[in-house]
Amino acid sequence: MLALGQELEGITVVSLEQAVAAPYCGLLLADAGARVIKVEREGGDFSRTYDHAANGESAYFIWLNGGKESIVLDIDKPEDAALLRQMLEKADVLLQNLAPGSLEKRGLSGEVLRRTNPALITLEITGYGRTGPYANMKAYDLLVQAESGLCSITGGPEEPSRVGISICDIATGLTAFSAILRALLLRGRTGTGVDISISMFDVLADWMNVPLAFQRYLHRAPSRLGVAHATLAPYGVYRAADGDVLIAVQSNREWVLLCERILDMPELASDPRFLTNMNRVENRDAMNIILNAVFETHTREELMARLRKGRIACASLNSVADLLHHPHLQTSAAAFADSTIELARLPVSGRMRELRKVPTLDQDGPAIRREFAASIRMTGGQA
Amino acid sequence: MLALGQELEGITVVSLEQAVAAPYCGLLLADAGARVIKVEREGGDFSRTYDHAANGESAYFIWLNGGKESIVLDIDKPEDAALLRQMLEKADVLLQNLAPGSLEKRGLSGEVLRRTNPALITLEITGYGRTGPYANMKAYDLLVQAESGLCSITGGPEEPSRVGISICDIATGLTAFSAILRALLLRGRTGTGVDISISMFDVLADWMNVPLAFQRYLHRAPSRLGVAHATLAPYGVYRAADGDVLIAVQSNREWVLLCERILDMPELASDPRFLTNMNRVENRDAMNIILNAVFETHTREELMARLRKGRIACASLNSVADLLHHPHLQTSAAAFADSTIELARLPVSGRMRELRKVPTLDQDGPAIRREFAASIRMTGGQA
Repeated sequence: MLALGQELEGITVVSLEQAVAAPYCGLLLADAGARVIKVEREGGDFSRTYDHAANGESAYFIWLNGGKESIVLDIDKPEDAALLRQMLEKADVLLQNLAPGSLEKRGLSGEVLRRTNPALITLEITGYGRTGPYANMKAYDLLVQAESGLCSITGGPEEPSRVGISICDIATGLTAFSAILRALLLRGRTGTGVDISISMFDVLADWMNVPLAFQRYLHRAPSRLGVAHATLAPYGVYRAADGDVLIAVQSNREWVLLCERILDMPELASDPRFLTNMNRVENRDAMNIILNAVFETHTREELMARLRKGRIACASLNSVADLLHHPHLQTSAAAFADSTIELARLPVSGRMRELRKVPTLDQDGPAIRREFAASIRMTGGQA
Repeated sequence: MLALGQELEGITVVSLEQAVAAPYCGLLLADAGARVIKVEREGGDFSRTYDHAANGESAYFIWLNGGKESIVLDIDKPEDAALLRQMLEKADVLLQNLAPGSLEKRGLSGEVLRRTNPALITLEITGYGRTGPYANMKAYDLLVQAESGLCSITGGPEEPSRVGISICDIATGLTAFSAILRALLLRGRTGTGVDISISMFDVLADWMNVPLAFQRYLHRAPSRLGVAHATLAPYGVYRAADGDVLIAVQSNREWVLLCERILDMPELASDPRFLTNMNRVENRDAMNIILNAVFETHTREELMARLRKGRIACASLNSVADLLHHPHLQTSAAAFADSTIELARLPVSGRMRELRKVPTLDQDGPAIRREFAASIRMTGGQA
């Protein structure tokens, strides 16, 4: 019986990938069972040297490259270009986040490649799309976070902030993964591949739709409120007698529960200042004074117990150290050279649930060269 | 010729969805061509009243619910439960983010449903998984952001911050979408459906892998630095004579370019304090003093031109208003009742590229009841 992690068995992905966005996509393809051949430039994907945090290895690289093969190619050398063509002859998917136009100008557009491999799916990741004034701008994660306006609504009241993880890269990699799966399902119906181009800016612009609607129709962006929600209230950090507790009220029904069961103030539920979420957002300060006055009379433990019993959503404001020891953190191991590195597990069960083998640079180069050089000879080098 | 947006034509999704995570998954399924029947409780998905930002309608709801049908069901009423069973008899996918166990206790587990519909795929979204001490905790977006440690590494040095968008919900919805596509590809090989359970906490834990490795192996989390990168340098906001410019250096090669072409300080490239990214992170303050001293002698426009010419990545720190007028923002319209609302377009081309029709509450209820009531009669009510 096949299970998740085998759905892409037999699918070959050639990935000219670097940094985070395309590698994350490649990781997910490998986890779903595909053969992912990571094509690296001389010296390797530069994320191999981003840091030494993962037991001496690059945390970025170890996280993002499990389950792949690695080959170093210089696509400006004729013999390596021929090998790449031969690989793409047999591939199902060409994934890449090179500079825009890099493959086209080398005669490796989807259109050209599909003349001999009609089923080939290509996916390119760009910063800002293929055309327009920003088409040639470099687009690293923080830059697109900043351009998209996301930083401007993240952080405390004083200053904007980056999201602490490479959200734009990761989100784009996951979007690219879903797009390739869509193209494979489409190919199941048509027999032919398609070209897909995903822009990091477009991914974040979609995710920004709520603040964007506030700006477009109400002429104001949601405020930067630190750990609080700009458009839902009460939703944020409150002070118990001995520490901080987060609560989140998402509906008027829950607001009524909070008033009745936690605050012991049933009359507050019909106070017109707080009837709807929009009212509560507008009168947030008055509401917070009432809430904190009650909460401060309880210890954190008492309050959390009371909130859970009253079915009011609550949480801890954890550090990364707290995450490391969180009872719900599930881990898996990555093997790289002689190291074993512990990682958070992928959220969907797949091939790498238990162990990710991360390739050293050009680890599979010789074998891949033999495999595809043989097919060059067999076809008389027609690629 | 079929195109993206048609790959799920003929696929029926029954979605007991609310708020953001499952609705975003449903939106993407609808965009890929599926028939998505949104099953709402009495009063409707509460995101219908989160705000009034989208030209008087809820920005969350309008963004997340294009291309779906809506029916109101009370699954505790026998006739509605029978209708739901009948729908699930014909469905390909059951998507839901109800409270954990809600469907099982009503006899609607994947295992039971597949006895009569072996091809049914089920996907549930939970906060913290099906088991463990947090299994029954409510898990709204900010709560999981806080529990995962993400807030602790987002924001300025003074205080942690929420990410300004519902990142955990959106990321989970997109992960769920990819998982359903994987299950459909697997079903293409096996003929049978599978049960998938995705936890919001697991999704963010994976995305937190880099800070987690820093904590596990270096015993320290990346610092909160506002708009700067904890593990890459130089990467952040710098001051030109008349405003702020963001730059991002991702490799030693780019550092050399910056020293030579922008700073006119080729000797800096071999300064041992700044040779590698780890060196530059460690000596960030000394480096920033040197950079700002040079940058302050240029206007922002001069500096940006110089950076672009030198191929050093740069960007603007935009507001949401800047995003609204960004030359690369691509929009599409949503139609709801008598309103037309402008949204940022989805990043992958699909069925709703041009227009999303967003359902009013129970808009399709009568037609869906007729359709499936007829099949109850035809099968003698065997569901």
